[in-house]
Amino acid sequence: MVLKSFVEVDIDSHFPLENLPYGIFIIKSSEQQQQLPHPCVAIGEFVFDLSVISSVGLFNGPFLKDSDCFHQSSLNKFVGMGRPAWKEARTTIQKLLSVDEPTLRDNAILREKSLLPMSKVQMLLPTIIGDYTDFFSSMYHARNCGIMFRGPENAINPNWFHLPIAYHGRASSIVVSGTDIIRPRGQSHPAGNSPPYFGPSRKLDFELEMAAVVGPGNELGKPVDVNEAADHIFGLVLMNDWSARDIQAWEYVPLGPFLGKSFGTTISPWIVTLDALEPFSCDAPKQEPQPLPYLAEKNSKNYDISLEVRIKSAGQEQESVLTKSNFKHLYWTITQQVAHHTINGCNLRPGDLLGTGTISGPEPDSLGCLLELTWNGKNSLNLNGLPRTFLEDGDEVVLTGVCKVISMFSYDFFFLLLPLFSSI
Amino acid sequence: MVLKSFVEVDIDSHFPLENLPYGIFIIKSSEQQQQLPHPCVAIGEFVFDLSVISSVGLFNGPFLKDSDCFHQSSLNKFVGMGRPAWKEARTTIQKLLSVDEPTLRDNAILREKSLLPMSKVQMLLPTIIGDYTDFFSSMYHARNCGIMFRGPENAINPNWFHLPIAYHGRASSIVVSGTDIIRPRGQSHPAGNSPPYFGPSRKLDFELEMAAVVGPGNELGKPVDVNEAADHIFGLVLMNDWSARDIQAWEYVPLGPFLGKSFGTTISPWIVTLDALEPFSCDAPKQEPQPLPYLAEKNSKNYDISLEVRIKSAGQEQESVLTKSNFKHLYWTITQQVAHHTINGCNLRPGDLLGTGTISGPEPDSLGCLLELTWNGKNSLNLNGLPRTFLEDGDEVVLTGVCKVISMFSYDFFFLLLPLFSSI
Repeated sequence: MVLKSFVEVDIDSHFPLENLPYGIFIIKSSEQQQQLPHPCVAIGEFVFDLSVISSVGLFNGPFLKDSDCFHQSSLNKFVGMGRPAWKEARTTIQKLLSVDEPTLRDNAILREKSLLPMSKVQMLLPTIIGDYTDFFSSMYHARNCGIMFRGPENAINPNWFHLPIAYHGRASSIVVSGTDIIRPRGQSHPAGNSPPYFGPSRKLDFELEMAAVVGPGNELGKPVDVNEAADHIFGLVLMNDWSARDIQAWEYVPLGPFLGKSFGTTISPWIVTLDALEPFSCDAPKQEPQPLPYLAEKNSKNYDISLEVRIKSAGQEQESVLTKSNFKHLYWTITQQVAHHTINGCNLRPGDLLGTGTISGPEPDSLGCLLELTWNGKNSLNLNGLPRTFLEDGDEVVLTGVCKVISMFSYDFFFLLLPLFSSI
Repeated sequence: MVLKSFVEVDIDSHFPLENLPYGIFIIKSSEQQQQLPHPCVAIGEFVFDLSVISSVGLFNGPFLKDSDCFHQSSLNKFVGMGRPAWKEARTTIQKLLSVDEPTLRDNAILREKSLLPMSKVQMLLPTIIGDYTDFFSSMYHARNCGIMFRGPENAINPNWFHLPIAYHGRASSIVVSGTDIIRPRGQSHPAGNSPPYFGPSRKLDFELEMAAVVGPGNELGKPVDVNEAADHIFGLVLMNDWSARDIQAWEYVPLGPFLGKSFGTTISPWIVTLDALEPFSCDAPKQEPQPLPYLAEKNSKNYDISLEVRIKSAGQEQESVLTKSNFKHLYWTITQQVAHHTINGCNLRPGDLLGTGTISGPEPDSLGCLLELTWNGKNSLNLNGLPRTFLEDGDEVVLTGVCKVISMFSYDFFFLLLPLFSSI
C-alpha cells in the first residue's frame, strides 16, 4: 500500500511519506532574517520543520511530549533517545502529513509555518560527529586493492575474513553535500629509491560509501551485543570518502590512511532511518569461515539499496555514470560493525559515524572508486568521449542511493547533492 | 630569579608560580552542593578558580575583559583565543598570586573563594576533544617496533624519515588521569595458520607519550605554515596510550591500529603551556635527509622534559621505576606535526589533541613501553623481585614529567595521577 500525503509528492520524488529522512536546515539568509538551525524531515519538495510541530504540542506521545529534542541545532539528542522515541516520531509525522488527517491539512497557518520549500532552505550537517570510523567491508574492494598493491597471492589479508577491518577517520573535515572540496597537497613517492616530491594530489578519487549514524551510545567498557546492535543505529547517510591515492600510498604503512583521506569527507544531509529501510532488508552474504561468537548474528541483515556514481566535468553538459553498485554487496553487516567496534569496550556516542568502506560489487561496472575502475590509472574511462583516470578540478561527483518497492509503483529514496571540486 | 607567591609552594611542588598549568575542576559533591565545572590553574596545593577572578573583574586586559572564556565548562574557548589572550592571562594570574601584590593577598574573602585545596576538588578533562591524532615521532621507538615485527633490514619504513607518520585515534575513549581502565577483550592470532581466538588481552601495555593541545584551529583547506605552527599550540599534557599488543598485531594490517588502542587513552588533567615550557626549550635533533620545504623550520625546537614511568602492582607497597626518557628524544617536532597534519587542508579545532607517539630514548632503560622494554614479552622485567612482561589487573601506572631549572633551585613541573587497572 502506498501512503498518501496531502503534500504533493511526485512519483519520482526521493521523499515520499514512507521515507521521511531526518536533517537539519536553516532558512537561507537572503530569504528571511537569520534563524537557528532546526531538525526536519523531507517530504516531496518540502522540509517539515519539527520544531514548529513540537512547539504547538503535536508531538504528544510519552517519549516526545516533554522533550526539547526538536529544539536543538543538531539531531544528536533525538538520535540518542532510541528506537521507542524514533517510532513515536515516525508514527506522529506520518499521521500529521497523511491525506486523511485534518490537523495540519486544514490549518493553513500551521502548514505555512511548518512546510518550507526546499529551495528556501540550506541543509547543514545532521549531527555533531564526535568520532568517525571507516570500515573496509566490501570483499570485492578489499580484493581489488590487495591485488593492485600486494599481488594476487596475498590479495586479501588473513585477518579480513575474521573481523571487520576499520580505521579511525577525521571528524573535523566531514562536510555536508554541496560543500566544495579543495584538492589536497602533500607528499607522494614516485617509485624505487627516488626521493618523495611535494604538490597537489594527481590521483584524486571518490569512494562510494554509506555510513551508519549511531543512535544511543554505550558506556566505556560495556560492549554492545551483536543481536542488540540495530538498536544503536539510527539510520544511514550516503558518504563520499574523498581519497588522494598518491598521498595515501606513500604514507599508509604502518599506521594506515591519514592525510590521503582527512582533507574532506562528504555526507548527505539526509539520514534515512533503519525503520524506513526495513522493507528493503535482505539476507547478508554467507560468511565463511564462521565468525567468532561475538560476531555471530541470529539474523544477519543487509539492505537492497541501488547505488550509483555520476560525474559531470567542468565544461561538459552531460553527466556520465561511472558505476552502479548496491549496499547488499557488503560482507560485514552494520550490526557486526557495531559489535566489533565496541567489543574492546570502546564507547560510541550519539551522532557518531560508521562508514561502510567503499561499496564495490562483483562486476567490473560495479566498482566503487576510480582506483578500481581505472586499475590505479592504468585504464582510462570514457567520459562522453574524453579519456579519464582520476578526478579533475571542476568535476562534480554525484552519489545516489535508491530503494525500489517491488510493486506497481516504484519510488526513490534519497540522494546526495552535488559536491563540487575546485582547485586550491 | 624565582617567582614567589603568597600561596605557600613547597620546594618539591609541581606547581610553582612559573608553571600555572590549566585545568577544569569541579568541587567534590560531598564537600559542597553540586557546582558547575570551572577553569583553573594549579598553584602549590591549590586550584585557583578563574571564574571567580573573572567575575570580580580582575581580568581587565583587552583580550579577557569582556570574555566569558573562564565561565565555560571546558578550556576550548580560552585556548581558541590565541597567544595574546594566553599571555594576558598568564601575566594577570602571576601578578595576582605574587607575594608583592596586595589585591588578592590582603582580601581574605576573595582568597577563600578563589583558592581551593586540591583535596576538595576533582579534576575533569581539560578540553572537549573533537579529534585526537597520534604521531609516531620517536626514531628509537619506530626502529625497535620495526625490528620486532619486520626484522632489522626493514626496521624503519622509507617514508618515516620524510614525514611525521600518524594515525587518527579515538576521541570518545580519552579519559582523565585517575579513571579506571578496563582490560579489553578482542581477537588475537597465535601464529601461522591457526584460527584467531577471543578473550581478554594478554599483552596489555602502556605507552609513555605527551600530547599537544591545539589552540586556534585552521579553516578547512588552509594549511598552517610550519613557522607559525607554535601559535596553534596551547600547551602539553602527559598521555598514556594504553595498548593491547595482541589485538593490535592481528588487526593493524593494512589500515592501522584500531581496537588495540581505542579502549582507553589517559591524559593528565593539567595542560602545561608552551609559555611555561619556554625556558626548557632546546634544539631538536638534526634531520637527515632534510625535510621537504613545508616541514623545514627556521628554528627547530624541542623541550627538555624528563619523563618517568613507575608501576605499583596490586598488593605491592613499593613502586618500581620502569623507564626514564625525555621529550627531547623526539625526531619530529610538534610544530612539524601541526604543519604536516594541515598540509592537505585538514582543519584542526581548538582542544584537539596531537599525541607524540611513544617517547623512547636511545638507552635500554629509556624505552617508552613494555613491548620494547620486554622485547614483546621475551624478557621479563624485575618488579621488586617478581618477574613481569605485560600489565596485570590492579596495576597502577604513573607517568611523570619534570622540567628542572639549572640554577640554585629546582622545581618539578607536572605530573599524571594514578590511572588504575581493574579487570573486566
